[in-house]
Amino acid sequence: MEKVYVIGAGMSSFGYYPDRNLVETARDTVWEAVKSSGINPKEIGMIFSSHMGRGGTFGQRVCAQLGLTGGTIVNCENACASGGTAIFLARMAIASGACDMALVLGAEKMTAIQGFIPPDPADYNGSVGMVIPAGFAMIARTHMEHYGTTPEQIAMVSVKNHANGCLNPRAQFKTPLTVEQILASKIICDPMHIYECCPTSDGSAAVILANEKVARKYCSKPVEIIASTVLTGAYVAVPDRTKSELSTRVAEAAYKEAGVGPEDIDVCELHDPFAITELWHYENLGFCARGEGGRFIEEKKSFIGGQVAVNPSGGLLSKGHPLGATGVAQVCENFWQLRGEAGERQVPNAKIGMAHTMGGPVTGLDAAACSLSILKV
Amino acid sequence: MEKVYVIGAGMSSFGYYPDRNLVETARDTVWEAVKSSGINPKEIGMIFSSHMGRGGTFGQRVCAQLGLTGGTIVNCENACASGGTAIFLARMAIASGACDMALVLGAEKMTAIQGFIPPDPADYNGSVGMVIPAGFAMIARTHMEHYGTTPEQIAMVSVKNHANGCLNPRAQFKTPLTVEQILASKIICDPMHIYECCPTSDGSAAVILANEKVARKYCSKPVEIIASTVLTGAYVAVPDRTKSELSTRVAEAAYKEAGVGPEDIDVCELHDPFAITELWHYENLGFCARGEGGRFIEEKKSFIGGQVAVNPSGGLLSKGHPLGATGVAQVCENFWQLRGEAGERQVPNAKIGMAHTMGGPVTGLDAAACSLSILKV
Repeated sequence: MEKVYVIGAGMSSFGYYPDRNLVETARDTVWEAVKSSGINPKEIGMIFSSHMGRGGTFGQRVCAQLGLTGGTIVNCENACASGGTAIFLARMAIASGACDMALVLGAEKMTAIQGFIPPDPADYNGSVGMVIPAGFAMIARTHMEHYGTTPEQIAMVSVKNHANGCLNPRAQFKTPLTVEQILASKIICDPMHIYECCPTSDGSAAVILANEKVARKYCSKPVEIIASTVLTGAYVAVPDRTKSELSTRVAEAAYKEAGVGPEDIDVCELHDPFAITELWHYENLGFCARGEGGRFIEEKKSFIGGQVAVNPSGGLLSKGHPLGATGVAQVCENFWQLRGEAGERQVPNAKIGMAHTMGGPVTGLDAAACSLSILKV
Repeated sequence: MEKVYVIGAGMSSFGYYPDRNLVETARDTVWEAVKSSGINPKEIGMIFSSHMGRGGTFGQRVCAQLGLTGGTIVNCENACASGGTAIFLARMAIASGACDMALVLGAEKMTAIQGFIPPDPADYNGSVGMVIPAGFAMIARTHMEHYGTTPEQIAMVSVKNHANGCLNPRAQFKTPLTVEQILASKIICDPMHIYECCPTSDGSAAVILANEKVARKYCSKPVEIIASTVLTGAYVAVPDRTKSELSTRVAEAAYKEAGVGPEDIDVCELHDPFAITELWHYENLGFCARGEGGRFIEEKKSFIGGQVAVNPSGGLLSKGHPLGATGVAQVCENFWQLRGEAGERQVPNAKIGMAHTMGGPVTGLDAAACSLSILKV
């Protein structure tokens, strides 16, 4: 199998942009990725587009504006894990030799959509109110009861991510928040406050992937994707709300493929649609033991400069969460961090990074799809 | 690269079923494919789901009902070519060794959707009325003017496909039509009559693909996929409406990969949303010379028993066209035909088959995506 590298990245500002044309935004983002890599775009062998909105060959619409026509374009969707799934497919295509170079594009216009992830009609829990925020609120409450996790610890996740977002010119929010401000903000779903929930976001992201020969030709510091996994939830009643069986299983598979462990990860972009979700994933991804997530954030181990810098980009909470774009933007952030190009939010000496998303209708409190890539410079 | 085979197939009845639950229909279809192949479904390595409707991890919803959880599921979309794209991805996954066996699932509920393929907002032609039926009506008119193709010849495509549909228990329409009835029916877009247009359809289809080792274990007569191609249109003004540059290019690539030519194809399921489209594709796929499509159907060369049996299933015109299901159902029909299991519509001595779909917003009269597979027993 061929090794696969990231050799270029582009990303729009994320934000509330109802008046922006998403095709044009995504076009500019693709072009930024192409220019940053120095490639001749005619060499792109396959294109994988990630977009959760209503079908209609979105990738083709974007690429047609740049003359990237004629080749293979595949549109894919896996809810919040759509972008990570597009990365997974592109890596598989290059690894297998089906092409030497691929473009991955992700974009979403959440401001144009209402009720984006409705409960699965077959999911009784969902139909009676167990929508995604309710599910995570129950995870928060259970974690607090089992492990003594405090509201202040959960709020600190949002403090950190908003502080990081202030350092990211492309983040949706660039205002620092305090624990007091967060805990005084509106309750969305007890115990979650509005400042502990990600915003409604529009935006796009793109990366160029290549095999080793092409990567070495164009890029002095390519970032290798040393593992990429996409798996589906167990779809059974979850015996323990304080654990994501799916994220844990995906992380174990990716660590095994990469030959590294959680202690080796320097920078991690993980799926934080809610503050509790990030705290929960510290444990699911193995950064700390079960029940230790509250202490992990309290001791600032996930801050830039800590044990593992989690969501230095600002994460979904502060950078924003345009669904199809999110997983691709995480790989952009890894690319910039591992190359030392992340400006004020640079994680010192970052060598190994991670991109993790988890999404889809929550059945019995686990998710439909989870993607995880590990990257290395 | 591993060889890839079809070893099982399932398909629902296609039809106007607004009261049917699509997830349940698709679940039963997947189970039919699994049972027909004799596999242990736990061996399925990856699942590719094709669905054009609003996102939301459709494949997971279906597979969860069968306990097919935990593994890799990817949802993909490429307009009318969605099903063919899922076949392409599954074949790539098996060929590369990423898995030994894959399930491909396609489903759509067109009765639940209005205005399914809106004109691309960036397409000036589309915004002023060049929607898909208008585009094909212009192709019909141009073909008639350039080559003397007659309304009777075009209508004969629909006569043939409705006659074939009468022999297919799963087809939406099972009523024979005459040239006179068709030409007396309502004009949809001059010169196209309603009986020359495909209906609004709901339905699902599924196939099991496997590498050679697994195929030989479970299947006494596996059907090899000897080529599979997905490409995108040129997105430029089309100089000659009587030719699909995209379908022609895709066919040339697939013939090259398969090492066969159009003269070798015994059975062909091709994309016939309108009668003129099938006539046009006789030429695009190389079954006859440019301009000869009218004579080709008039001489019954595309009838069962003719030079190449085109759409023995009834095609989109008679079997129906649930978008995400169509490309997968074409592979089902090839599987049954090449194994001699097609009942009353069996094509004699069918050894090599083809599945072709083309779809997406029509810009300058060519399409966004085209998929083509060639199969051999």
